Amino acid sequence: MEKLPGDYIAGFVDGEGCFALKFRRDFKSHRKGKQEYFYWDIEFAVVQDAKDEEILKSIQNTLECGRISISKRGVARYSVNDIDDLVGKIIPFFETYKLHARKRFDFELWKRAITIFMKNQKTMWTEPDREYLKAIHGEMTKYKGGNKGNWKWL
Amino acid sequence: MEKLPGDYIAGFVDGEGCFALKFRRDFKSHRKGKQEYFYWDIEFAVVQDAKDEEILKSIQNTLECGRISISKRGVARYSVNDIDDLVGKIIPFFETYKLHARKRFDFELWKRAITIFMKNQKTMWTEPDREYLKAIHGEMTKYKGGNKGNWKWL
Repeated sequence: MEKLPGDYIAGFVDGEGCFALKFRRDFKSHRKGKQEYFYWDIEFAVVQDAKDEEILKSIQNTLECGRISISKRGVARYSVNDIDDLVGKIIPFFETYKLHARKRFDFELWKRAITIFMKNQKTMWTEPDREYLKAIHGEMTKYKGGNKGNWKWL
Repeated sequence: MEKLPGDYIAGFVDGEGCFALKFRRDFKSHRKGKQEYFYWDIEFAVVQDAKDEEILKSIQNTLECGRISISKRGVARYSVNDIDDLVGKIIPFFETYKLHARKRFDFELWKRAITIFMKNQKTMWTEPDREYLKAIHGEMTKYKGGNKGNWKWL
C-alpha cells in the first residue's frame, strides 16, 4: 500500500478533510422537570465517493490510524475518533505538514477543543469545560460568516 | 504572497481541481441544410467558495500562470486556458508532483487531448483529430462509470 507525501495529504485534507467538533443536544427527565444536556464528540474525517476509497486507504496507511467505512449510499468515510490517535498522530502530522487554506483555522480551534477531550472521562468535565467547547464550536461556525461551508455534520 | 509546497498543490488539486476537456455542439446553416460541428476547449481549473480566494491566489502564485475570477454568486475560480502555460507549466508540474487519487486518470487522458490543442490553429484540425478528442472525452466519462463525478462543466 502506497505511502503519500505529507504535504500531499495536507493539500488533500485542506480541500476534502474535516476537523469536526460535534454535539448532540438531549434531555434527561428529573423529578424537577427536564434537564438539557450535550453529548460532545470530536474527530478527524475525510469523505469521498466510494469509488475513491483507494485514496482514503493510502491516507489511512500513511497516518497509521483511523478506520474506513462505506455507506449503502456509496460514500466512503475515513475517520479518526480515538483521542490518543488524534493527539499522538493527527495533530503532530498537521503541525509538520501545514494546512494553508482557511481550514487551518478549523484546525487551530479544534486543537483547543482536544485539550478538553484529553481529560480521561467525559463525566469529569466541569461546567467551564463545557462552556469552553460551546465557545469554540460557536467560533468555528462564526468565522465562516454564519455559513456552515465545509463544516458538515458527518 | 505565499509559495506552496508542490505536493500540497497536488493533494489539493486531487480533491478540488479539474482537468477539463469541454465541447459545445452547434449547428451551421448551409444551402444543403444544417451541419453539426463541435467547439472544443481545454483547461485546468480549481473552484472554491469566494471566501477561499486566498488559497487560489497562492496556487496561482506558485504555478506562475492562470487567472482568478469571482462570480456574482460567490464562486472563486482559478483557471489556466493558455495552451503554452498548460504545456509548459501545468503538465510538468503534475509530472513532478504526482496526483494519487483517481484524478490522475483524468490527467493522463487530458494530456493526450492537449497534443491536439498544441496544433496552432483549430481550423487546421483534421477529422481524425476531432474523432480522437471525442474518444478521449468518452473515455473520461466512461471510467467514472457513467457518473460524471467530479467532472464538472465549469
